[in-house]
Amino acid sequence: MESAPYILNNVTKKKLWHINTFIFDVDGVLTDGTVIALSSGEQARSFYVKDGWAIQNAIKKGYNVAIISGGDQEGTRKRLEFLGIKDIYLGVKSKSEVYAKYCQENEVDPEKVLYMGDDLPDINVMIRSGVAACPSDAASDILEIADYISPKNGGKGAVRDVIEQVMKIQENWRQTS
Amino acid sequence: MESAPYILNNVTKKKLWHINTFIFDVDGVLTDGTVIALSSGEQARSFYVKDGWAIQNAIKKGYNVAIISGGDQEGTRKRLEFLGIKDIYLGVKSKSEVYAKYCQENEVDPEKVLYMGDDLPDINVMIRSGVAACPSDAASDILEIADYISPKNGGKGAVRDVIEQVMKIQENWRQTS
Amino acid sequence: MESAPYILNNVTKKKLWHINTFIFDVDGVLTDGTVIALSSGEQARSFYVKDGWAIQNAIKKGYNVAIISGGDQEGTRKRLEFLGIKDIYLGVKSKSEVYAKYCQENEVDPEKVLYMGDDLPDINVMIRSGVAACPSDAASDILEIADYISPKNGGKGAVRDVIEQVMKIQENWRQTS
Amino acid sequence: MESAPYILNNVTKKKLWHINTFIFDVDGVLTDGTVIALSSGEQARSFYVKDGWAIQNAIKKGYNVAIISGGDQEGTRKRLEFLGIKDIYLGVKSKSEVYAKYCQENEVDPEKVLYMGDDLPDINVMIRSGVAACPSDAASDILEIADYISPKNGGKGAVRDVIEQVMKIQENWRQTS
Repeated sequence: MESAPYILNNVTKKKLWHINTFIFDVDGVLTDGTVIALSSGEQARSFYVKDGWAIQNAIKKGYNVAIISGGDQEGTRKRLEFLGIKDIYLGVKSKSEVYAKYCQENEVDPEKVLYMGDDLPDINVMIRSGVAACPSDAASDILEIADYISPKNGGKGAVRDVIEQVMKIQENWRQTS
Repeated sequence: MESAPYILNNVTKKKLWHINTFIFDVDGVLTDGTVIALSSGEQARSFYVKDGWAIQNAIKKGYNVAIISGGDQEGTRKRLEFLGIKDIYLGVKSKSEVYAKYCQENEVDPEKVLYMGDDLPDINVMIRSGVAACPSDAASDILEIADYISPKNGGKGAVRDVIEQVMKIQENWRQTS
Repeated sequence: MESAPYILNNVTKKKLWHINTFIFDVDGVLTDGTVIALSSGEQARSFYVKDGWAIQNAIKKGYNVAIISGGDQEGTRKRLEFLGIKDIYLGVKSKSEVYAKYCQENEVDPEKVLYMGDDLPDINVMIRSGVAACPSDAASDILEIADYISPKNGGKGAVRDVIEQVMKIQENWRQTS
Repeated sequence: MESAPYILNNVTKKKLWHINTFIFDVDGVLTDGTVIALSSGEQARSFYVKDGWAIQNAIKKGYNVAIISGGDQEGTRKRLEFLGIKDIYLGVKSKSEVYAKYCQENEVDPEKVLYMGDDLPDINVMIRSGVAACPSDAASDILEIADYISPKNGGKGAVRDVIEQVMKIQENWRQTS
């Protein structure tokens, strides 16, 4: 098996021209994969402001942005809502079912979806997405099947990287409409 | 003294075929070894979601998973219980005593135990385990006696690494039973 | 386009002789760019003590220090006030407007301002400042236009680095007046 | 000026034979130099469990361990007391005054003190200590005057490193008295 490319090959690059939908996992993609456990029982997760800015920019320019995560934490939901994301699926058992339903209800063509995941529960969605991306610190099984491995880690710019690349190729990253 | 191998040698590799029990220290193994002290006196520790997924997978496939830690913090206990771990020994004075008792009561053969520790209180258990593993940022005394040094740091995938290697060799990592 | 210099070129170095005002963005400059989201909905950000010491030293020696940030969080304001900063503009929509107003009201010559930012909302201020600086982990668009890229990351010494360089060139870094 | 050695030279190594007292700064030495600011106004700091174990070991074997810090935070005090440290000076204005008083009252010979600091307020103590040590991420002025630069960062094993080196040379690191 060839190792997945850090540099987008031509086939993947062509697909970026058509992406109109970004779907992200949370832990290890939008966060650095750590869960901070407080002695009170409360939990905390680390998000990245530059990822957040890119998500807000994508939404403003009309891209679909959705979240599908197995975890379910109130702090995560608040952070995602603050960024303006409407389609937030937390506590999901089968990601591929939710993914199929989301695409159908929103008339999204899976070939136009860029999905970024980092671990085994993401595989069944990744193989059904136009571009399957992952952070550089994804699990080994994911690194093997990804179309594109971002040079950035989860929660440290991997999400920013893929949004910025798609929007720059489509020339509306800095454009104020 | 030879330095411990990052790559498993053949003797250690053979032992992985027989491992049916994983035992982990907490601080510096399941966490990154930091303790966050809040001004309120509350404490927090950082766990890694990919480690957690591997632990849940191991339990689902019938492996024994136990925790032996000198520390004792409510947030840690809640995180470990959430992962489905039943045998959680916190606030332990003598790890080797608890280890011997655990093996006896659960009819676990120490030769089939993979134990991962990172500091001096772990030594007496490590020398009694089939495979003594440690994260790459373990204390110098531990790096010298480990059968296997994971390329990953504590709280950053060292636990995931050893569980994944054992379960892949035994061919039930991705298998859905 | 030439890539921005890690080493100050002569033109930029000369400008450091005249800097009397430091203006900083918060997220990704004074912090490491992460936002910790707690399950309670509370948020947290990471500041760097060595940056803080440099800011206090600059204020003591008579430099102007101001903050212009799009974010608005109570914990951030408290940290900045603790450091002795008086001009703190949070929740800012247009940074360049606030910047122009600040310079006018305080009779600050923009040519004598060192501004450090890390993302697109900072560009319109950076191109109006005597020295436009950024941390080494700034967004790609910022790395391209900066006069100076600090070898340090945001929230990990980038602010310290520029204050220390300016004050050492002007020979009042260690001087006790 | 020669750069400070990562490897202890012979003069410094000889001094380690006589060290009976460890004095540490807090921020950037016992912590990683970050201050986490919560939206509630609460603060948090990150300590390292392996540092803590070494401090407990040193105290058990009869070494003096003291803390001199400019900061003053309740969470810090609790963490230090938990480790068994008795001489804790927080909120200190002049570190060299407190240092002189501590040495006098406890009949400590400054030549037998290893002090670890990381920033300018530490200089006047460092030049009065038998061994002046610092973490690898200390401020540039400190890196220039240190007798020994630990290869580890603050809050990531620098404290552990110096305690372990002194106690191993004096052959009571692993010894159970």
